[in-house]
Amino acid sequence: MFEEAENDPVMSEKEFARREPDLRDALLTAQSALRETSDRALLVVVGGIDGAGKGAAISLLSEWMNPRDLRIIAFGEPRGDELLRPPMWRYWNELPPRGSIGVVFGSWYGALVREASRKHPDQERVQRLTEEIRHFEAMLAAEGVQLLKLWFHLSRDAQQQRCEVLAADPDTAWRVSEEDLLVAKHYPTLRAGAQTVVEATAFPFAPWTVIPSADPSMRAWRTATAVRDALRRRKAPRPEEVEQPLTDDVPERLASADYTVRLDKKLYESQLAHWQGRLARAVHHPDFAKRSLVAVFEGNDAAGKGGAIRRLTHALDIRQTRIVGISAPTPEALARPYLWRFWREIPILGRIVVFDRSWYGRVLVERVEKFARPAEWRRAYGEVRDFESQLTDHGAIVIKFWLAITKEEQLARFQAREAVPFKRYKITQEDWRNREKWDAYRVAANDMFAHTDTPAAPWVLVASDDKRHARVEVVKAVALAVEKALGISGKK
Amino acid sequence: MFEEAENDPVMSEKEFARREPDLRDALLTAQSALRETSDRALLVVVGGIDGAGKGAAISLLSEWMNPRDLRIIAFGEPRGDELLRPPMWRYWNELPPRGSIGVVFGSWYGALVREASRKHPDQERVQRLTEEIRHFEAMLAAEGVQLLKLWFHLSRDAQQQRCEVLAADPDTAWRVSEEDLLVAKHYPTLRAGAQTVVEATAFPFAPWTVIPSADPSMRAWRTATAVRDALRRRKAPRPEEVEQPLTDDVPERLASADYTVRLDKKLYESQLAHWQGRLARAVHHPDFAKRSLVAVFEGNDAAGKGGAIRRLTHALDIRQTRIVGISAPTPEALARPYLWRFWREIPILGRIVVFDRSWYGRVLVERVEKFARPAEWRRAYGEVRDFESQLTDHGAIVIKFWLAITKEEQLARFQAREAVPFKRYKITQEDWRNREKWDAYRVAANDMFAHTDTPAAPWVLVASDDKRHARVEVVKAVALAVEKALGISGKK
Repeated sequence: MFEEAENDPVMSEKEFARREPDLRDALLTAQSALRETSDRALLVVVGGIDGAGKGAAISLLSEWMNPRDLRIIAFGEPRGDELLRPPMWRYWNELPPRGSIGVVFGSWYGALVREASRKHPDQERVQRLTEEIRHFEAMLAAEGVQLLKLWFHLSRDAQQQRCEVLAADPDTAWRVSEEDLLVAKHYPTLRAGAQTVVEATAFPFAPWTVIPSADPSMRAWRTATAVRDALRRRKAPRPEEVEQPLTDDVPERLASADYTVRLDKKLYESQLAHWQGRLARAVHHPDFAKRSLVAVFEGNDAAGKGGAIRRLTHALDIRQTRIVGISAPTPEALARPYLWRFWREIPILGRIVVFDRSWYGRVLVERVEKFARPAEWRRAYGEVRDFESQLTDHGAIVIKFWLAITKEEQLARFQAREAVPFKRYKITQEDWRNREKWDAYRVAANDMFAHTDTPAAPWVLVASDDKRHARVEVVKAVALAVEKALGISGKK
Repeated sequence: MFEEAENDPVMSEKEFARREPDLRDALLTAQSALRETSDRALLVVVGGIDGAGKGAAISLLSEWMNPRDLRIIAFGEPRGDELLRPPMWRYWNELPPRGSIGVVFGSWYGALVREASRKHPDQERVQRLTEEIRHFEAMLAAEGVQLLKLWFHLSRDAQQQRCEVLAADPDTAWRVSEEDLLVAKHYPTLRAGAQTVVEATAFPFAPWTVIPSADPSMRAWRTATAVRDALRRRKAPRPEEVEQPLTDDVPERLASADYTVRLDKKLYESQLAHWQGRLARAVHHPDFAKRSLVAVFEGNDAAGKGGAIRRLTHALDIRQTRIVGISAPTPEALARPYLWRFWREIPILGRIVVFDRSWYGRVLVERVEKFARPAEWRRAYGEVRDFESQLTDHGAIVIKFWLAITKEEQLARFQAREAVPFKRYKITQEDWRNREKWDAYRVAANDMFAHTDTPAAPWVLVASDDKRHARVEVVKAVALAVEKALGISGKK
């Protein structure tokens, strides 16, 4: 795969100059077609051996193309918030919208390349990192982000020579890093690592293109033509859509709850105060500074999410807590993979975010209302599992509530809301329409539990016909989850 | 001013219950009128003595109002990116859009309140902090952010009693902080500090309302009515608009440049390499991790901003550098004060941002095209000086370039661009229209230099009829600015 590149092919400057005008014209034409159709974003992932001139190639590209819709997104050592959020956060945060191009330096390949380039790579870790990348890139491709992955490569001699020439002149020595100068020494190991990475991650929906990099003209020509060809594709490659049927034997979890349980006022007040106190003590524990809390609220309309959230946040320091209400996505969000807007709200360590509705809209309202195709909401189960794993791996405590009420109780609450002037705004025609789809939502919720209830990010089903019971259950579950995660006892 | 509050007035629960429905209804009506007109945002700033029950009052408010357009924005000790950007950044970042309400805890009053509440306040510092707040709030008010500032206050005895009752019960003890318990001891000093702050910052366009806080019903009632009344105002108070004439004797700085200077190719290449090398070494200096760099590019159309920026960034580590191209504001930006979108792009320490056009659009294109009223662009001079001071005070190196060409050279470049297919996208009808307004832009630019060229954030006028000369000047000026800021010599 690296054979051609290691032959260090050359293009004469004259030849390059002859071809340049047409190529630039073609790039600009393709770029404006992308902007006009806005059917996808193009993400150019830049990888390759150190000292191959990746920066110079991309710099030329950005000179040739319209800077309005081309963004260079380069990442170095994590700093500031990057250290306080899961590693993938910074990539999500910078995803280009449809119609535009992003060029990523310092991408999510860092850890895999480092592991694969060790003398004795940990094969299991290589496998796991590869799998994570496959999941991530499949999701991007399925969500309308076309991936063009460029691997810059050249022979050992050419690499060494290029670096030595630059290093010899004090005016260009700064272009050569210590890593660049060490490549020649470790070339066979680095090459083997590169081969492992490029082979293992050459997915049909996210292929690699190897760019011969010894000769600047050839490198520029091949880089620009790869981008041109990617832009010209009528249909960007996407992962195969498998419409596998959901299993039939999904447990009827909603039916399993006891909706008759009641809590009297006095008991409610003392229990609520007890659990609020325990929760407050838990999140003030010094160890919480190394964790974060993500609490998700879903449930039937009028099930009492708002009231439960207020009882919960009442026990939390408002300076460390944020409530994020999720409604219809903005155009900015619609131009990117659907998880983008949720990633943006993920708390840094030491902080808490409460989601009033969430990414589960994908498999609930979007499924029921057919805003998402079956292939889309079916793959979402795996995507949200991946998302939540990334949160919990980084220290987040994730807990998800479904507040469930009976159909009779919902009717009573709808009617009560309509009767009180200052509650009327809470009930709309849409709520009544959703109510007609009660069974469809029930099926969707049961499927969701079956596919996304994980030990690290569990669903807590809360029977909410009695608001007091529901509120205590919510605060108690969060308090216990935080205590358990910190390994502390809630005793006073 | 605190007299009424220190009498600890009471409202009976019965009276409160009687008034509650109408008040809630009025709040919701006023809130939806705000959303519909979207003529302004309402920012409720919460201040007051510790242990007055601020949190409880706001919690009730958020229970009563539509959570969709009401956001509680609470700040604690700075963390993560907050530490790596100027202190005001986090407030800018969270400004609510027009049509919605934000409630700020832990606002920009922190430093002033702490200083004023010391036994022997530094009067000069109090003065300076007050002045900074006046500038900031005047800008918000002028830009359509209505300010309602609530100061929660109560008598020493009531404060002490409230805290002791809460602290005595293990289930509510967590609601009382150590600061709360210390208030009684230092009450006279804290009260004097509060009085200083409230008196000094009671601006007509951002008044304080003192909320008597001893009795929960009275506190809730007064909080909610203050919000209702603020929302009901047909016209939110704004700072007086003074249409003071600009001085007549603005120097013709653009005319003072020497546009005939030329640099031959060989000299250009060696000088460019020299200054790129010096710049690269400077930003790799360990001390740069405690600084940041903000480079602004403005200038005539076709003056060569893009080419100069590329030569500059070529010397910079792309992993620490971001180029931000500024075009027409999005609806999201238009719903907030105009500086909002620029604050969002401000680099953390150790990083570099290059602005291709900038906040100076306010006094250039917006002035010339009459997108901004004279009162608006005239006050912008002071606003951008304040903005840039906040950057430089926090360690940013700010440098601003005006790339200037002659009218003849611009014509030649426009025609050249139209002649080459792959350059044609760079020239539009708008560029030709702007050219007709050459003199208006010249006047605007000269005024801008006169009002915003400060020692800490200087304008560098670069005669750019010769692109080589201009590029070297730009890289050289940045290199020297970074060397000077770090106190290092550029010698190899």
